[in-house]
Amino acid sequence: MVDKLLPSWNNTPTRQTLLDFIDRVTSRTGPEYVHPRDRVVTFDNDGTLWCEKPAYPQFVFAMQRLKRLAADNPALTKELAYEAAVENNLDYFESLYPDNLPALMKIVFDTHAGMSQTEFERLAREFLSDTNHPRFGLPYEQCIYQPMVEFIQLLQANNFKVFIATAGGMSFVRTISEEIYGVARENVIGSSIAFEIGRENDQLFLQRKPGLIEPLDEGQGKPINIELHVGRPPMLAAGNSNGDIEMLEFAESSGSLFLNMLLHHDDAEREYAYDEGAERALQLADDRGWTVVSMKEDFNKVFDF
Amino acid sequence: MVDKLLPSWNNTPTRQTLLDFIDRVTSRTGPEYVHPRDRVVTFDNDGTLWCEKPAYPQFVFAMQRLKRLAADNPALTKELAYEAAVENNLDYFESLYPDNLPALMKIVFDTHAGMSQTEFERLAREFLSDTNHPRFGLPYEQCIYQPMVEFIQLLQANNFKVFIATAGGMSFVRTISEEIYGVARENVIGSSIAFEIGRENDQLFLQRKPGLIEPLDEGQGKPINIELHVGRPPMLAAGNSNGDIEMLEFAESSGSLFLNMLLHHDDAEREYAYDEGAERALQLADDRGWTVVSMKEDFNKVFDF
Repeated sequence: MVDKLLPSWNNTPTRQTLLDFIDRVTSRTGPEYVHPRDRVVTFDNDGTLWCEKPAYPQFVFAMQRLKRLAADNPALTKELAYEAAVENNLDYFESLYPDNLPALMKIVFDTHAGMSQTEFERLAREFLSDTNHPRFGLPYEQCIYQPMVEFIQLLQANNFKVFIATAGGMSFVRTISEEIYGVARENVIGSSIAFEIGRENDQLFLQRKPGLIEPLDEGQGKPINIELHVGRPPMLAAGNSNGDIEMLEFAESSGSLFLNMLLHHDDAEREYAYDEGAERALQLADDRGWTVVSMKEDFNKVFDF
Repeated sequence: MVDKLLPSWNNTPTRQTLLDFIDRVTSRTGPEYVHPRDRVVTFDNDGTLWCEKPAYPQFVFAMQRLKRLAADNPALTKELAYEAAVENNLDYFESLYPDNLPALMKIVFDTHAGMSQTEFERLAREFLSDTNHPRFGLPYEQCIYQPMVEFIQLLQANNFKVFIATAGGMSFVRTISEEIYGVARENVIGSSIAFEIGRENDQLFLQRKPGLIEPLDEGQGKPINIELHVGRPPMLAAGNSNGDIEMLEFAESSGSLFLNMLLHHDDAEREYAYDEGAERALQLADDRGWTVVSMKEDFNKVFDF
């Protein structure tokens, strides 16, 4: 029976750690039983649930948009971001991360400012299902880690409340979270553009306006946004980078049993191998005994294709 | 069978409207069937779920705190808000509403700035269970409308996702939403103070800091905050005042079957009778055919005591 759980995971100690955690939390007669009300879990998205290399999908989406805007108005290419987009210069955008994340997110969000939320959702949905990942040759929406999806499903089946806490755009991820992860829109927490109310034909609608909502959902912003959206710390938090550290510390601060996971990208053959941007997180995992998931050792399958 | 539903409602056309709505939305073979994923409903809190007269419970809570702070530091009474609190001058606070809601909420929130979120939750919980309503002589947490609680439960039993969208403090209402309404913390949307990360004994915690998160959850802020928290418009919205109009318009804009409800306070005997602050909402309900619930005619019982 247990053998059939998490089929895309190898039968390693990591897999056993996950199964044991669920078992301890849900055993009604055990000392570590937790009421379903308190079973909050939070997953980062980029690099934890879907592939973030060679570029965050949302950057590619923003670049497409910048290109289109520049094609309509060539004068825009005087601006660095537009110029970089037209030249497919991903390095420019990557160079802004992580130190200039606010500037970067402002570019990402401003490219879709001024339109209705409905129109944005249509464009985001279209991008994620129609644009292929440059290496895997399949739409971005398919470049998700099958073992992590199975873990989410197993948690949900055990009455855990699964949230996504992404530094990326909340609306962007929500357009497909239900379909690809089985995570309801309202359970997606993330960075967001500001909104204003528009009116058309006497009907109210939501319009995206320039400007970000503070704090961005990265680093210290993750516990803050989790508090705003959920009102409880997670008892399980999963991430893959330095930007997830405070979210994992938030789980650790809950005072009860917790499980912190870091997905380690060590599989250049099936995905990518990189520690950049995760150095501090990996060090902390070592210091504090957080669970490090090795993509190479623990996943018997990375993607479902 | 149907007769046993909503037992605290009189058998009026209003009750039938509510039952019919649920029936139409959930009948799998019917033309108006809506997938549970999309069954978002939003309830205002003050005056819609709990009694807001003679003063919003949160004002009373803030006044208690202002008094305590002034007792510790008498120099504070030079400030209007402290002076008003010490003199039990509720009119001062009420006079700020609705035109100076931001100033008012700033007073309300700042009184609990600088403390940890955990400590705030303890104080709020204590207030709501220990402080008696001046007229009903029972704790504020019991001054909730039993027919509305039954309606929430009926919606949940039919797989609607029930959210609260309150102009009041999100954290304040969350401390008891599960217990008194059966609404999960994460389903409470509201106005909020800002947070920052504190550290103690190498543990991270959330600290409340002065300042509000924009927009407040009132008027145009309600659709915006519902979008941020839920990502979908409600198909049923219930309120009682002008501050709920945009939320009801948001439901109307969803393009599908919707039900908008306004609770009319017309029962001075069992509760209070007042139209102030609801004039425009009542007019719109009349113009657009929104369902007006008469506390006097439609409720056979107001409170569960």
